[in-house]
Amino acid sequence: MKNITVGVYGGTGYSGWELIQLLLLHPHVELKFITSERKAGKNLADVWPRAPGFPLQSASEVDLKSVDYVFLCLPHTQSAPIATQAKAAGCSVIDLSADLRLNDPADFALWYGVPHAAPDLLPVVYGLSEFYRETIMGAKLVANPGCYATAVLLGLLPLAQAGLLAADVPIIVDAKSGTTGAGRAPKQHLLFSEVSANLTPYKIGRAHPHIGEIEQQLAVSGVGKGCLIFSPHLLPTDRGILASIYAPVQDAQQAAAAIQQAHQFEPMVKVLPQGELASLAHVIRTPYAVLSVTPVPGNMLIIMSAVDNLLKGAASQALQNFNLMAGFPETTALLPPSNIETL
Amino acid sequence: MKNITVGVYGGTGYSGWELIQLLLLHPHVELKFITSERKAGKNLADVWPRAPGFPLQSASEVDLKSVDYVFLCLPHTQSAPIATQAKAAGCSVIDLSADLRLNDPADFALWYGVPHAAPDLLPVVYGLSEFYRETIMGAKLVANPGCYATAVLLGLLPLAQAGLLAADVPIIVDAKSGTTGAGRAPKQHLLFSEVSANLTPYKIGRAHPHIGEIEQQLAVSGVGKGCLIFSPHLLPTDRGILASIYAPVQDAQQAAAAIQQAHQFEPMVKVLPQGELASLAHVIRTPYAVLSVTPVPGNMLIIMSAVDNLLKGAASQALQNFNLMAGFPETTALLPPSNIETL
Amino acid sequence: MKNITVGVYGGTGYSGWELIQLLLLHPHVELKFITSERKAGKNLADVWPRAPGFPLQSASEVDLKSVDYVFLCLPHTQSAPIATQAKAAGCSVIDLSADLRLNDPADFALWYGVPHAAPDLLPVVYGLSEFYRETIMGAKLVANPGCYATAVLLGLLPLAQAGLLAADVPIIVDAKSGTTGAGRAPKQHLLFSEVSANLTPYKIGRAHPHIGEIEQQLAVSGVGKGCLIFSPHLLPTDRGILASIYAPVQDAQQAAAAIQQAHQFEPMVKVLPQGELASLAHVIRTPYAVLSVTPVPGNMLIIMSAVDNLLKGAASQALQNFNLMAGFPETTALLPPSNIETL
Amino acid sequence: MKNITVGVYGGTGYSGWELIQLLLLHPHVELKFITSERKAGKNLADVWPRAPGFPLQSASEVDLKSVDYVFLCLPHTQSAPIATQAKAAGCSVIDLSADLRLNDPADFALWYGVPHAAPDLLPVVYGLSEFYRETIMGAKLVANPGCYATAVLLGLLPLAQAGLLAADVPIIVDAKSGTTGAGRAPKQHLLFSEVSANLTPYKIGRAHPHIGEIEQQLAVSGVGKGCLIFSPHLLPTDRGILASIYAPVQDAQQAAAAIQQAHQFEPMVKVLPQGELASLAHVIRTPYAVLSVTPVPGNMLIIMSAVDNLLKGAASQALQNFNLMAGFPETTALLPPSNIETL
Repeated sequence: MKNITVGVYGGTGYSGWELIQLLLLHPHVELKFITSERKAGKNLADVWPRAPGFPLQSASEVDLKSVDYVFLCLPHTQSAPIATQAKAAGCSVIDLSADLRLNDPADFALWYGVPHAAPDLLPVVYGLSEFYRETIMGAKLVANPGCYATAVLLGLLPLAQAGLLAADVPIIVDAKSGTTGAGRAPKQHLLFSEVSANLTPYKIGRAHPHIGEIEQQLAVSGVGKGCLIFSPHLLPTDRGILASIYAPVQDAQQAAAAIQQAHQFEPMVKVLPQGELASLAHVIRTPYAVLSVTPVPGNMLIIMSAVDNLLKGAASQALQNFNLMAGFPETTALLPPSNIETL
Repeated sequence: MKNITVGVYGGTGYSGWELIQLLLLHPHVELKFITSERKAGKNLADVWPRAPGFPLQSASEVDLKSVDYVFLCLPHTQSAPIATQAKAAGCSVIDLSADLRLNDPADFALWYGVPHAAPDLLPVVYGLSEFYRETIMGAKLVANPGCYATAVLLGLLPLAQAGLLAADVPIIVDAKSGTTGAGRAPKQHLLFSEVSANLTPYKIGRAHPHIGEIEQQLAVSGVGKGCLIFSPHLLPTDRGILASIYAPVQDAQQAAAAIQQAHQFEPMVKVLPQGELASLAHVIRTPYAVLSVTPVPGNMLIIMSAVDNLLKGAASQALQNFNLMAGFPETTALLPPSNIETL
Repeated sequence: MKNITVGVYGGTGYSGWELIQLLLLHPHVELKFITSERKAGKNLADVWPRAPGFPLQSASEVDLKSVDYVFLCLPHTQSAPIATQAKAAGCSVIDLSADLRLNDPADFALWYGVPHAAPDLLPVVYGLSEFYRETIMGAKLVANPGCYATAVLLGLLPLAQAGLLAADVPIIVDAKSGTTGAGRAPKQHLLFSEVSANLTPYKIGRAHPHIGEIEQQLAVSGVGKGCLIFSPHLLPTDRGILASIYAPVQDAQQAAAAIQQAHQFEPMVKVLPQGELASLAHVIRTPYAVLSVTPVPGNMLIIMSAVDNLLKGAASQALQNFNLMAGFPETTALLPPSNIETL
Repeated sequence: MKNITVGVYGGTGYSGWELIQLLLLHPHVELKFITSERKAGKNLADVWPRAPGFPLQSASEVDLKSVDYVFLCLPHTQSAPIATQAKAAGCSVIDLSADLRLNDPADFALWYGVPHAAPDLLPVVYGLSEFYRETIMGAKLVANPGCYATAVLLGLLPLAQAGLLAADVPIIVDAKSGTTGAGRAPKQHLLFSEVSANLTPYKIGRAHPHIGEIEQQLAVSGVGKGCLIFSPHLLPTDRGILASIYAPVQDAQQAAAAIQQAHQFEPMVKVLPQGELASLAHVIRTPYAVLSVTPVPGNMLIIMSAVDNLLKGAASQALQNFNLMAGFPETTALLPPSNIETL
């Protein structure tokens, strides 16, 4: 009954490997190829201690005609050219890089500091499954959101859509991420000896490129660009993102209710009862986002939004989108096939 | 040449042990007693793997007449009664608990949920060495600041004193602490199995009692109470605090300069050049506070303020205060006795 | 199609919770009750951040007649009395405690320092699935092996059975375990502040009670008791066991081959090709044991045996045994229902 | 009063930086230069977050005539040529690399797989301070022992010297090290994402080159080469070594006593009372070695030997040796200048 063939570009990074693990368990997927430029000719089992045997090929070796779908787990700028090829070959594309998230090539140049490699592809459907479900269903090309952006938008988009954010007041997001978010390429600042017992802020204020995609999404509901202060920190843990969001609102209880309502029927998002706070332990190694909402005096809503950066922040969201695009139930291969409430 | 005798109440907690280590190296201190109610009769070496032999006594056994100074490393509510006794016995007192930090007993009841045990002692000099140096010099009773409060006030007080904070806009502090800040008493949520790979917010918004002492200090410079949003998080590391402070200011560059200027001659505070960001690695196991200042558009200054919660946030600041009170150079036993720039 | 009803005693410990998660995904299991003496009246979701709603009951409240099988995740000495009741009520029993592992009550008293609470139950089938598969299939009462014992016996039993261990030479096992192996009850030495950045040996030499069950199993193949030196260490990580086994053998290459041969068709045990070394990363959060075999000069075989202490060392092995006892394929709810090689 | 001038080759690695920190606090040392080939032209403060300003120079730029002593914190094979130059220039040399530890160039080629770069320098005094104190005092060239070798030899040399090791029985050393022992050069297997939650054996059996220097030292007391099985493991922590030594002896109590006696007056080595076990917490960030001795049945002594790999395993031992060579008290700049028992 495996009726969809897929290929994965970039199987040697953390999110690529997470995605492969999910795809191997998907009852209707047949994985045809995995690419890696640096490890082409080797085997997946050489790269990951628990991986099954599977050949790694160069992108130039694989046959796009052999697959219905491709997942691109590539660094930004490398993804867009492959997307172009895949589209031309008739494949559906889910791009986990940043290349297709911004509608305007100028925005890409602004946030990433390099010109866009394939502006003709833009704009592309933004694959935040919970908010663009219907559009994703009909799409051939989907841009999977950034890990931080996923955590932040699940908290802020319901407020923006309901018009509950206070105008012209900065929204402050203090975010923390585990190290897998920074990739598997060896860099000194990512060594255990450097990260252990440390906490490091980076690209704080208005510097991190995920601001671009977050503000683009908020702008759809009329929130002016420039409102977001976003400060990520590198945690001494391997996976998980917690975004501590300080949202100025018109009415904090109403805002809290809006978030709870927005996600109440979402299979992959859980909003905790008021009084409980989201933590990494709620989400790591799961496909869920878990949020908490805490109204504070002065019309402020503190939203804690937790995701696993490699799952809801990357691979499992890609699979949600795939399921939507391919016509499967959205949670296929992500939730147990039963009516058990596992969260 | 040891001419000051001291006693330590509470030698089995993390900050008590840090303090004892510093006192043992102080060239003019003779340590006469260490108390512990639960371990009375045992030895310091039974409690800490690297400790020298030193008897642990019950508070009821020690002779306050035998010492010039006492350091109180006790839980809040247990400290004030001992402070009263010590004062009556003519001892100088440095209290590392929260008991003497708030001037008004009603504030104590508000933030700690219990009545104050010795309101007659209040108000007491607030031992933030950098800002109350002269007053501390003449004091017999000093309240050592809270660990979070130290980190936050080193960043915000210069702005408050210079009148640079924007009025009526919330100041948001997103703080992160290592586990030693939560003490050594066994609790399930502090187990390695629970903390590892996790990040947990707690007492967010307007709930943490350090808000009381921070706002009391800011109020001296006219900053209205109620402005502070303070959200601490428990980190998967053992020590260190990083407070990420989002300060709305009238002019961000001017505010950055005010902080750099305030601390430029401070031996224990370093403000990094703009562009560098403070991290835990700058401060853990040192008596320093390290701050960075990052102006962002919209009249916001992001201050990263890092301290070791057990040192500048507790024991080494207590020793700074002791040195001031006893007439020694402030950095005695904290910095090497040379002109080496060690930071 | 859920045709087996089960109850779990002790759902608030780490292995109980792992087991519950597995049982909830088992297609033929209906979970009827979960007990906890300390949390009776509360809900599973109060105890674990990701747990579904499920009432926690006192053992005295549950109806043993309502279930076909019980799993006992209780401390030693508390398990045997419940096993007696459950047996009397006609239930099949899988005991994860140490109570039923030693055939002779005198051995229990020797290793655990207390008399056995239900000697009439002994001896019980030892649930090391790979070696006692046929006996387990027909058993009503199974003693699930200890976590360390599982790791060690998967390496040593093939050598003992083949008569390849050198006589009268000590076998040295230097074992390392994550903190969940020490339970969830709060103890000072298990705090993050104490375990982090530390490595602690404990009960080294001939002191750890798992020696009893290991030597009992080796003795079946004629290996004399007293040969084992076993030194566990507490690791700064939450889960996983690596047992570094130094086995004096008659021929190291032959011994390596014996281990590879013993496990070549085992679904839950993988022996790595010579030259690769087992690590925790091979096994944590999986139901597998992974072993490596390294012959060294002087007729020594170094076996590295890795298991997740909560899975193959506890919960997933319990489920293997359950599947055998209840007539399901042994890997049901443990391996994906496909022919994918996932390791 | 600074009367000794020194230079450090290799200031950008972990042990170089530890050494620099110690040298800066030494009352009789003037640090004249620090070299780094990759960072020449930059400043020490660019490389370490807490470092003072100090220029980094290429080795080709520095003037060996300007210093009395040089410390070589270089990779093996790079150190010996510099040692040759320094000797020619009349400098005393303390080499922290492996280049000068083995007396026979053929042994170097055997263990390190490359020919020795300066065989004329050999043999060199082996700087295990506790055992070669007198020879070190008169030496111009000292080879600082390896980190693992230090931990192992402090346990085994007393037994070898007393003739208490059983003949022809393997000595098994199961060693564990923090990640700083593997250096600061970025490598994938040293990333936080890979090391965290993992434990990895490597070069087990007869493969690790420290076997060469350990056996060379044991051979001086007649212990035959080839007896040692040495299996290191990479720990998920940043610093510290624990060597778990299984020593077959003729009489375990006598052997335990021999170790206690050998070190009873050593300022930098502490042997714990029987019943206590050495752990990393005893030694990390201290210049001490801490050992425990546990006799077990069957004439086996289990020795746990703990050192900080960067201090007693590298930098502080280098300083001990320097103090001996230069005629200062051995513990200068390592222990507080008082009679306080700090361990």
